[in-house]
Amino acid sequence: MVTPLRGRDELDLAGLERLIEHILSGGIDGLFILGTTGEGPSLSYSLRRELIERTCRLVRGRVPVLVGITDTAFVESVNLARYAATAGADALVLAPPYYFVEGQPELQDYLDHLAAELPLPLFLYNAPRNTKVQYDPGTLRRAMDQPKIVGLKDSSGNMDYFHQAVGLLKHRPDWSVLIGPEELLAEAVLAGGHGGVPGGANLFPRLYVQLCEAARAGDVPRSQQLHAQVMLISKSLYQIGRHPSAVIKGIKCALACQGICDDFMAEPFHRFRAEERVRVQRYLPELTTGVEKLVGNHHTAPSGRSTPQLGASAQA
Amino acid sequence: MVTPLRGRDELDLAGLERLIEHILSGGIDGLFILGTTGEGPSLSYSLRRELIERTCRLVRGRVPVLVGITDTAFVESVNLARYAATAGADALVLAPPYYFVEGQPELQDYLDHLAAELPLPLFLYNAPRNTKVQYDPGTLRRAMDQPKIVGLKDSSGNMDYFHQAVGLLKHRPDWSVLIGPEELLAEAVLAGGHGGVPGGANLFPRLYVQLCEAARAGDVPRSQQLHAQVMLISKSLYQIGRHPSAVIKGIKCALACQGICDDFMAEPFHRFRAEERVRVQRYLPELTTGVEKLVGNHHTAPSGRSTPQLGASAQA
Amino acid sequence: MVTPLRGRDELDLAGLERLIEHILSGGIDGLFILGTTGEGPSLSYSLRRELIERTCRLVRGRVPVLVGITDTAFVESVNLARYAATAGADALVLAPPYYFVEGQPELQDYLDHLAAELPLPLFLYNAPRNTKVQYDPGTLRRAMDQPKIVGLKDSSGNMDYFHQAVGLLKHRPDWSVLIGPEELLAEAVLAGGHGGVPGGANLFPRLYVQLCEAARAGDVPRSQQLHAQVMLISKSLYQIGRHPSAVIKGIKCALACQGICDDFMAEPFHRFRAEERVRVQRYLPELTTGVEKLVGNHHTAPSGRSTPQLGASAQA
Amino acid sequence: MVTPLRGRDELDLAGLERLIEHILSGGIDGLFILGTTGEGPSLSYSLRRELIERTCRLVRGRVPVLVGITDTAFVESVNLARYAATAGADALVLAPPYYFVEGQPELQDYLDHLAAELPLPLFLYNAPRNTKVQYDPGTLRRAMDQPKIVGLKDSSGNMDYFHQAVGLLKHRPDWSVLIGPEELLAEAVLAGGHGGVPGGANLFPRLYVQLCEAARAGDVPRSQQLHAQVMLISKSLYQIGRHPSAVIKGIKCALACQGICDDFMAEPFHRFRAEERVRVQRYLPELTTGVEKLVGNHHTAPSGRSTPQLGASAQA
Repeated sequence: MVTPLRGRDELDLAGLERLIEHILSGGIDGLFILGTTGEGPSLSYSLRRELIERTCRLVRGRVPVLVGITDTAFVESVNLARYAATAGADALVLAPPYYFVEGQPELQDYLDHLAAELPLPLFLYNAPRNTKVQYDPGTLRRAMDQPKIVGLKDSSGNMDYFHQAVGLLKHRPDWSVLIGPEELLAEAVLAGGHGGVPGGANLFPRLYVQLCEAARAGDVPRSQQLHAQVMLISKSLYQIGRHPSAVIKGIKCALACQGICDDFMAEPFHRFRAEERVRVQRYLPELTTGVEKLVGNHHTAPSGRSTPQLGASAQA
Repeated sequence: MVTPLRGRDELDLAGLERLIEHILSGGIDGLFILGTTGEGPSLSYSLRRELIERTCRLVRGRVPVLVGITDTAFVESVNLARYAATAGADALVLAPPYYFVEGQPELQDYLDHLAAELPLPLFLYNAPRNTKVQYDPGTLRRAMDQPKIVGLKDSSGNMDYFHQAVGLLKHRPDWSVLIGPEELLAEAVLAGGHGGVPGGANLFPRLYVQLCEAARAGDVPRSQQLHAQVMLISKSLYQIGRHPSAVIKGIKCALACQGICDDFMAEPFHRFRAEERVRVQRYLPELTTGVEKLVGNHHTAPSGRSTPQLGASAQA
Repeated sequence: MVTPLRGRDELDLAGLERLIEHILSGGIDGLFILGTTGEGPSLSYSLRRELIERTCRLVRGRVPVLVGITDTAFVESVNLARYAATAGADALVLAPPYYFVEGQPELQDYLDHLAAELPLPLFLYNAPRNTKVQYDPGTLRRAMDQPKIVGLKDSSGNMDYFHQAVGLLKHRPDWSVLIGPEELLAEAVLAGGHGGVPGGANLFPRLYVQLCEAARAGDVPRSQQLHAQVMLISKSLYQIGRHPSAVIKGIKCALACQGICDDFMAEPFHRFRAEERVRVQRYLPELTTGVEKLVGNHHTAPSGRSTPQLGASAQA
Repeated sequence: MVTPLRGRDELDLAGLERLIEHILSGGIDGLFILGTTGEGPSLSYSLRRELIERTCRLVRGRVPVLVGITDTAFVESVNLARYAATAGADALVLAPPYYFVEGQPELQDYLDHLAAELPLPLFLYNAPRNTKVQYDPGTLRRAMDQPKIVGLKDSSGNMDYFHQAVGLLKHRPDWSVLIGPEELLAEAVLAGGHGGVPGGANLFPRLYVQLCEAARAGDVPRSQQLHAQVMLISKSLYQIGRHPSAVIKGIKCALACQGICDDFMAEPFHRFRAEERVRVQRYLPELTTGVEKLVGNHHTAPSGRSTPQLGASAQA
């Protein structure tokens, strides 16, 4: 989930409520806040706490809430994890510490020590484009010996890696292995992954939910059709700016155009200017029509089932 | 300066005092805390504040204190900067936000907005191995239009970049251009740089001070001699561990062997085990003898001069 | 296809014949020589010419022969292409020049100029791990305006890129879009790709042919089953050495263990020593049994159909 | 030395003669052909042989001629080396094979095997931006046990690496350690290196020769002055194009503007168009005046001394 903001250190509260309802109406099975798309590392700690508290309150247990606690400072990750547990969150998500370049044995020790302090189940978040360091397959295997660690979100973009993670499921059949980049969601689920955490589900939650369902059912033509729509979104809406921030800016701008929430961005980023916004507005009608043709536009009540495999489907 | 720790969230207070006196006795011209060697990003915010407050108190104005405020969250950088100003620090040091990969125009806007909020002069800290993003020469040039920005510490290891920064001094003759890696200190000062911020000055402050002085005086044979000793340290003491953390671990372990401070490391790192410590102990006598032959072992009172070019010489 | 060698500049002629018959017996639809797995860039020009001539003669038109002409020297690529045409090859394969780092406009001009000189249809070979430079999607789009360019082999490992290439097929429905890494073959074909060029097809050609067929038929359970076997091969046989050369060394060593051809490697590589060979011999029986259980061990006559989409299935 | 061309596979013979005389008139101590600036890997083998033969004939033993034999094919490197020896060249220059990513042990074996076949002394050429792989310090140390290997040209841009190479000279005091990038020439020689191989010496040979001499003499102010002029050239003339090829294009275009040789480039590059040429012409007068003020414009006869340390000063 993106983080709706009104200012540098202020949530867009009305937008947050509308956004949560919009996403849940798509039938998603879990909500991930304070991740990359959520600009987590760019937010002050007090804002992160407020977001956790309000999100849990607004979701009211309809779906599990997963909270990103990735940090360069161990103590701050623990602090945030404890806050999340008290606020009623369901699980935590953790990428490697991202200032230093730690070796895998160092990362393994870090995971052991951190997991010991955590009050909630933990998903690993593999995001080497942001963190430089990845969880190597050997580190994943070792993390499976920690009962508190329950799954992986892989945003590496490296499907060979993802297949290795799926191959490790025989050691922990209860793990959830989720894919980050939505461009890879179809193949990830067709290959035995449990679901994904697509940023685009902020906008079109039903599209990604139905893609997951089609792929899980082994329906290749339907998967291809929905996947083609995802690629259309990715190669238009996400490529308006010149920098890697274009993806988040595009999603936030589209949400603002749809009246769902403000498109204010945390530093070091800034919302699209008029010129880029015009391009977003030009793409949106066609994309929306395309999505509705494929998945309908009626709202779906969230399934609300609370499986042991947290987040086993599309999450925003 | 390394951060002497006794535990995951606890300073080694006696060690901190001994370390500061040890470094200042070498004649250094400034003290930089909460940088990379100081494990800044790995420390909790309360510990960072405590370190700032105690360091300023212990230094008692004998040399300028520079405080690292690098953060992924704009608001937290500002908070820390304000705390540092109140505690009596002299300047701030800032690397680019290091989770996202921001474009240079985004980085320029960020610098403009942040500088406007800062209560103290600011040094830019170019550290692309940790932050992925660098301050491009064009961004340096633009930063020179901000009176509040007063210098650069370049840890890129790219001397072509450093020369470009020196070349820009004509636009801001009051800037200090400092080098990070101590292996490049001699040539950086010979090329017109003002000094360096060598991690090794935690151990052998006089060595780096005298290297700066020799290079500033254009004394090539003396510079080569001192530089050769720096390379000896770098290729022995800093290469004991297998991971990039070996440099900080080596320095902290050597300081512990010398009875100066504890070698506890903040997560995700851990102090050297017995095996590596033995290797440090084997190197230390020879390195110490080598340094003393070159620079003597008598203590020097810090010069204490407060030039407008903060940190214009070796800093730890 | 790997290049069977007996010495630094000498083909293993008997091995070449056995290898070709072995691969063709698996039902593959095309044979790619002088690629990465074929150690093309490591071979002398006279050896490359001899390999082309002998391969074309031994294949006798049963399947199309595709010849790698990647080179840093334009003139040598043209020379080799002309030789291949005379020898009876069917198509050419070209990665970007790989010493300099050319920009995309430079690469586009290069493609235009080279295609104009070529006597045979050309496949682009995207292999940025070896060439540093990739064919950007915009360069692919532009290459589609060249009738002589007929397809793409993508070895980037980046499935988002592959999906973009598939998305471009609307501009040239006659193109073949093939995947390089065999770990990605299943999803590539499920996503609308035409086939792959798996190195493992030197050993187990039927496995990859049947995987392509299952994926093309949208048979997800069968695809997953065959894909799991491919992953087993990849994570055992290809990971014996410490260097990236381990993949080719593993394949050649396994072929030698099976009595198909010599495992001599061109410089800068060398065949596995006894220690690694023992590990290959330990893996082989289980892998062979696994493959035979899935795809049988009877030989299949090559289909021999000569479609306009050269190489539209698994190629070695 | 750049390679003067008139067409895709044709030398500019008159230009070659003028260029050699121009460079030699600057007092350089050796001539390096078929390197990166010489577009070696982009030239056909017959052209490379012709260039070797003609250059040796035109130089007439006035300075040593060094010939690049870097290749992905071992056999072709040997062939070219033998040709160079017969033509009268003095030494060979070799970067690692650059298609595959070889490990250091593989590279060490390769060096051992290749050196055994070479008829002339060999310089190692460290150029990881082009070859991906570098000669690690341990590999350099091991190469020093080969009497036939006599030196290093380091184009990595990493001065820490260069200092390590200088530090290894105690094992082979007869080695020459040369720097590639001209932006680092001053500090390389001040640090104990023997000289450089600056591309700019095609244009202004005396500038680089005098910079070497000043640095060797420990004359820091003079070194800084000449270095500043090198930086002016680097940050104007070499930054006109958008791609990394801009350096070679800039040098060749400037040579053409001065009537020395044609600026035809081998594929995949092309000479500057009118627009960029105008910018070169705008920079040239000021750069030339600056250089002449510093080093005079009278020609110097090459020193012609034939030391055992081949290329112990600036080479083009």
